[in-house]
Amino acid sequence: MKALLVAISALASVIGAGAPALAADALRDQVRAYTAAHQKPILEEFVALLALPNVATSVPDIETNASHLRVELDKRGFITRSLYAGPETPPAVYGELQSPGAKRTVVFYAHYDGQPAAQPEWRSDPFKPVVRDGARVDGPEIDWRAAPRLEPEWRVFARSASDDKAPIQAMLSALDALKAAGRKPTVNIKVFYEGEEEQGSPNLSRILQAHKSLLTGDLFVLSDGPRHPSGRMQVFFGARGVTGLELTVYGPLRPLHSGHYGNWAPNPAVSLVRLLSGLRDDEGRILIPGFYDDVRPLTSAEQAALAALPDVETQLRRELALGRTEGGERVANAIARPALNLRGVRMGDVGDKAANAISTEARASIDFRLVPDQTPQRVRERVEAFLRSQGWFVTADEPDAAVRAAHPRVVRAEWSLDYPAYRADMEAAPAKAVVASIARSTGAEVLRLPMLGGSVPMDTFARELGMPIVGVPLANADNNQHAANENLRLQNLWDGIEIYAGLLTDLQW
Amino acid sequence: MKALLVAISALASVIGAGAPALAADALRDQVRAYTAAHQKPILEEFVALLALPNVATSVPDIETNASHLRVELDKRGFITRSLYAGPETPPAVYGELQSPGAKRTVVFYAHYDGQPAAQPEWRSDPFKPVVRDGARVDGPEIDWRAAPRLEPEWRVFARSASDDKAPIQAMLSALDALKAAGRKPTVNIKVFYEGEEEQGSPNLSRILQAHKSLLTGDLFVLSDGPRHPSGRMQVFFGARGVTGLELTVYGPLRPLHSGHYGNWAPNPAVSLVRLLSGLRDDEGRILIPGFYDDVRPLTSAEQAALAALPDVETQLRRELALGRTEGGERVANAIARPALNLRGVRMGDVGDKAANAISTEARASIDFRLVPDQTPQRVRERVEAFLRSQGWFVTADEPDAAVRAAHPRVVRAEWSLDYPAYRADMEAAPAKAVVASIARSTGAEVLRLPMLGGSVPMDTFARELGMPIVGVPLANADNNQHAANENLRLQNLWDGIEIYAGLLTDLQW
Repeated sequence: MKALLVAISALASVIGAGAPALAADALRDQVRAYTAAHQKPILEEFVALLALPNVATSVPDIETNASHLRVELDKRGFITRSLYAGPETPPAVYGELQSPGAKRTVVFYAHYDGQPAAQPEWRSDPFKPVVRDGARVDGPEIDWRAAPRLEPEWRVFARSASDDKAPIQAMLSALDALKAAGRKPTVNIKVFYEGEEEQGSPNLSRILQAHKSLLTGDLFVLSDGPRHPSGRMQVFFGARGVTGLELTVYGPLRPLHSGHYGNWAPNPAVSLVRLLSGLRDDEGRILIPGFYDDVRPLTSAEQAALAALPDVETQLRRELALGRTEGGERVANAIARPALNLRGVRMGDVGDKAANAISTEARASIDFRLVPDQTPQRVRERVEAFLRSQGWFVTADEPDAAVRAAHPRVVRAEWSLDYPAYRADMEAAPAKAVVASIARSTGAEVLRLPMLGGSVPMDTFARELGMPIVGVPLANADNNQHAANENLRLQNLWDGIEIYAGLLTDLQW
Repeated sequence: MKALLVAISALASVIGAGAPALAADALRDQVRAYTAAHQKPILEEFVALLALPNVATSVPDIETNASHLRVELDKRGFITRSLYAGPETPPAVYGELQSPGAKRTVVFYAHYDGQPAAQPEWRSDPFKPVVRDGARVDGPEIDWRAAPRLEPEWRVFARSASDDKAPIQAMLSALDALKAAGRKPTVNIKVFYEGEEEQGSPNLSRILQAHKSLLTGDLFVLSDGPRHPSGRMQVFFGARGVTGLELTVYGPLRPLHSGHYGNWAPNPAVSLVRLLSGLRDDEGRILIPGFYDDVRPLTSAEQAALAALPDVETQLRRELALGRTEGGERVANAIARPALNLRGVRMGDVGDKAANAISTEARASIDFRLVPDQTPQRVRERVEAFLRSQGWFVTADEPDAAVRAAHPRVVRAEWSLDYPAYRADMEAAPAKAVVASIARSTGAEVLRLPMLGGSVPMDTFARELGMPIVGVPLANADNNQHAANENLRLQNLWDGIEIYAGLLTDLQW
């Protein structure tokens, strides 16, 4: 295998920069050969990264991840720093690798923190990565270290396997592959790995403001989110914003027997479900007056890009056993609209644990997905005005007994006003360069998504850093992102290494 | 103290049966003196009973309770048996104590199993009883064994302290008090202590049918539920029925990222809250067509008894910090109607644990409270017909992928068709005898409740055993029954001992 690599490396070096397509083919072959020969050590390295708990509510866990990442970057020749917004906040990891003679500097973004991982549906510990067959995710764990080879459809199951440690591993392994092939990056590389994206990036602006001079560059490549559900590569030029809302509705000060007080003492569970069912309908339409007033319409170019996306709905409906879809649109169009997702409701208990009681409170958790030109603050105003119009006394704080007694209906609304949406020009030169590079690396046309349905703080980067942003997602679409049993298809990791190797060596604009 | 007891005992024996009020006064004084002198050993015995976990989903736990109770009954001279409906079902404990010369046999009922106790709000282990000050239930635990005396307002906190081991302890200690006073019960005593009442008494009918000859008698005294919220003693002549319903609504087969699939993949949480909010309104009114058709109206005597109940609403609203009540009626009237209580909703998670995901399913748990002449089966038919009319495919079983894909809206409805309601004649002779005895024991007028808001299987007893039934509740109304931090006020236990001592010695009809 080593002889082959040397031969490919030699071939690549004689082809030169004047024949990018041919050079890209050669590069892809070199990287592919490297990856094929090093799958197990690459996966071993990835598994070590995934084994580090990374829910950003625990800053010590995040620090452990940051130290680990800095060591990995050090090994590849980076100079690194941990960037803080203040004491006891999760750091971002910054790394810089200059390439002699490079004219462009590319900042690569990913986040190394993950969603909460307490879902009881996890089949294995979210921080003890295991491999299972993609066609049989309910099947047994695979002893991949002992396997003769790693199948491309196998998946590694762990929190953040897809969201969003995969691009970090792809970058690290791409650098190893380039080094093995004797290839040098043609751009200066900066990495900015965020440590609290899944908490709504509360300190991101402050970190960016404090380190603006460090983070200058010509292009910001943001790797997060999934590939197109068809499996094809896509790039995105925007992302929806996000705003979180925790609602608490109050019942009696102490729990009451439902038989002795039901029909008399207000049941907060009933009040809450009635409140929630007034916020949106079954088709995804948000019922809050004025909610859609600030929505910027899609341009015709954006509409055309959406229309060019291949059909995934038929396959998805079958895979997910859906008897209907909300709103009747295609997925890509549905997620170009604002959304209200009811992500959790907790009151009393169900099944064997249900007690015949009226609870003291009932809670719900909502994530709003925003589009340009909505703002979190404006959404908050509209939602709270609507609740007031429905007879609710809205408070940001825990109401005391006097407040509860003074108002027929009290709801506590706790907001995380995370960040607004972003949608950039798909036709800008650096954007086109990224699309062309990935097309060369993968040998296939790249789908163009005007805006990712998921939320990444692109608006914050654009506002603070003022450089073009392109999104390059690597994960399989069925990765269980944000849920139990999050996973990454191994072939997506290998592909990601090739894509990153391409971006590091053949971006041309 | 002993001299006093002997004196009282002698006094009582010369008064004779011809002067019941005076005799009752003397008895009460004797029992009160005994209780005052033996509070700590009585509480020690009660605490030992409460320390036994008793959620009837664990049959071994129930067996341990049954053995313990049989030993306690043995000590008081009972012959005992465990009565089974079949293998691996929780037994009922039967005990019998003949009183020479007695003409009447009274069957005393309580249940020794408890509600599930997994609520996170428990301040201490539900099966490690602790004592705290009733005026400061959030205060520290009291080292009652070391205290100079037990304050009447102290409370013992444990699952089943009030519901429903208190009457069992009251009976045991009443027998001890009578023995110490040299008094003999004037009725034959049978006890029937059920072991799965909080699971909806699924095997009760079979046990009663199998042991009908054992359970004959002239009066069935059922001790469960709380005293009137005013603190006054009440007896009840009926109880609402109960029917449990677990609803599960389905989303995608695997959890999905809300950003990438929201607005397209149906969110089961949204569908469920909309379903639930269509079942009843904020005022307790059930919106299921025909739900009230079978309701038997209250008689004018029953309405008069309700009207005679003292005002508790003012105090309750203040205590519970209620800004409103449902329906605008008095408590007693509200709980004389059928009710739909939403006892739990579980979907996704909230707060720090909330993930931006669309869940695969969402669950709710409901308890229906029924009144005569509703039946669980009829309620089931009406609810399911209503759900179908709203576009739901209703199934009793876990739907597979094919079923989920074939129907736009699938709901699983799992019913526990527990038992119907019961309401007896308040003017029957044995009922009046019980009211008179308690009035003598407590020296106060007894409130008469046509029907308890909570559910006890009175209908089952009436149907299977064919004897008059009267309900004699002992617990404080604010006992957190069915919820976390269930407790019994100590004075209610001492009162209960006096009430039981009275019922055992001066029932006259």
